[in-house]
Amino acid sequence: MRIKLIIEYDGTAYGGWQVQDNAPTVQAEIEFALKKLTGQHIGVYGAGRTDSGVHARGQAAHFDIDSSIPPEKFSFVLNTMLPADIRIRSSEQVPETFHARYHAKGKEYVYRIYNAPHASAIERNTTMHVPSPLNMEKMRTAAGYMVGTFDFSAFCAAGSVAKTTVRSVYAIEITEQSPLIAISVKGNGFLYNMVRIIAGTLIEVGKGKLDPEQLPHIIACGDRKLAGMTAEPQGLTLEQVFY
Amino acid sequence: MRIKLIIEYDGTAYGGWQVQDNAPTVQAEIEFALKKLTGQHIGVYGAGRTDSGVHARGQAAHFDIDSSIPPEKFSFVLNTMLPADIRIRSSEQVPETFHARYHAKGKEYVYRIYNAPHASAIERNTTMHVPSPLNMEKMRTAAGYMVGTFDFSAFCAAGSVAKTTVRSVYAIEITEQSPLIAISVKGNGFLYNMVRIIAGTLIEVGKGKLDPEQLPHIIACGDRKLAGMTAEPQGLTLEQVFY
Repeated sequence: MRIKLIIEYDGTAYGGWQVQDNAPTVQAEIEFALKKLTGQHIGVYGAGRTDSGVHARGQAAHFDIDSSIPPEKFSFVLNTMLPADIRIRSSEQVPETFHARYHAKGKEYVYRIYNAPHASAIERNTTMHVPSPLNMEKMRTAAGYMVGTFDFSAFCAAGSVAKTTVRSVYAIEITEQSPLIAISVKGNGFLYNMVRIIAGTLIEVGKGKLDPEQLPHIIACGDRKLAGMTAEPQGLTLEQVFY
Repeated sequence: MRIKLIIEYDGTAYGGWQVQDNAPTVQAEIEFALKKLTGQHIGVYGAGRTDSGVHARGQAAHFDIDSSIPPEKFSFVLNTMLPADIRIRSSEQVPETFHARYHAKGKEYVYRIYNAPHASAIERNTTMHVPSPLNMEKMRTAAGYMVGTFDFSAFCAAGSVAKTTVRSVYAIEITEQSPLIAISVKGNGFLYNMVRIIAGTLIEVGKGKLDPEQLPHIIACGDRKLAGMTAEPQGLTLEQVFY
């Protein structure tokens, strides 16, 4: 049967989601737990990769297994075998045709900023520290220009192998609970580093280094150098995957 | 001159606030930073101890120093020398008569619960996981009985050396942002483990294991065995010290 997982992880200790040779990864930890359970290698397919240091509250993934364990119990069984910084929030049976990556209709990411003179001790692994005051109104104006269907080449890191750089951003919402600022970005899909470049661009707008009215031009030019910096990985969390 | 600090720390890696032989502590880290700065041992006096694993967003402390550094700059200088899980939020000069502990008029602690079937990966070091549903109404009723000036012997761990076990609790507020529940407790002072025993008692009330109407009796008897368990340390944060 095919099982769909919803996964939360603290990405601090990991080299990202996807299995790689030189660092522990979340995918590898879940595959290792399944091997302990079954004695076999079972491939786990995530909805998308997350980079080193990036977190998830609602990563989705699927795997195939022959087992008498009821589908909704896999979360409990796997959590006994996983490290505490990875938790399966739910497990359910899905049709054999379901694919966590190919059937994902969209995703929500949240980027968190700690906007105060000193960094946070408690939130240091889940926020980016920005000491200078940020102008929320300008950030919201700039965010408005990025909502829609565009060629987001200017917001894509070098080395991307995407077939097309056109993506639809459905909504960008910026909320403040001082000193925390959260930027929620929902879209049908994201290019490599796209949300972190959107966040970095909004931070530079908030500081007054970029003008909100430059955004249409930046998008139209498609030149990565015109957009803002790539915001630090630890501020980013994959909140949910829509199907 | 005498300097007052406001300190935030993630207590996960420490044996609490106070200097001890067998574990790193927050006080020792700050004294070590001051030694790097001045070459001398400078004693740092905190408003109160926090236990191993307990956090602070607003611990207060003072120390005496001869220095040409402007008082408000000590936060920046010390933060360059401290580990990232300890941050000085502010520093200011105070009169030589000020004492962080003896002049504290009260404190606010917040106890955080993660109330969901599975524990949180991201919040694992700042919440206690309670899988069974909690009745908020009963918890609020029970909390109401603990507000006031009472002999809190029933809420004091063995080994306390307090001269009196009478304390005033000014307010207990319980807020829910599912799956997070936060219990804020304000009072003029707290006995050893008192906030964690209050939280543990409220959790047992929320589960239905204790009735809210038993609280007046538990307080009156002063018997530690009648109150609830001592909730886990990592859920507790010292939010602020009032002067």
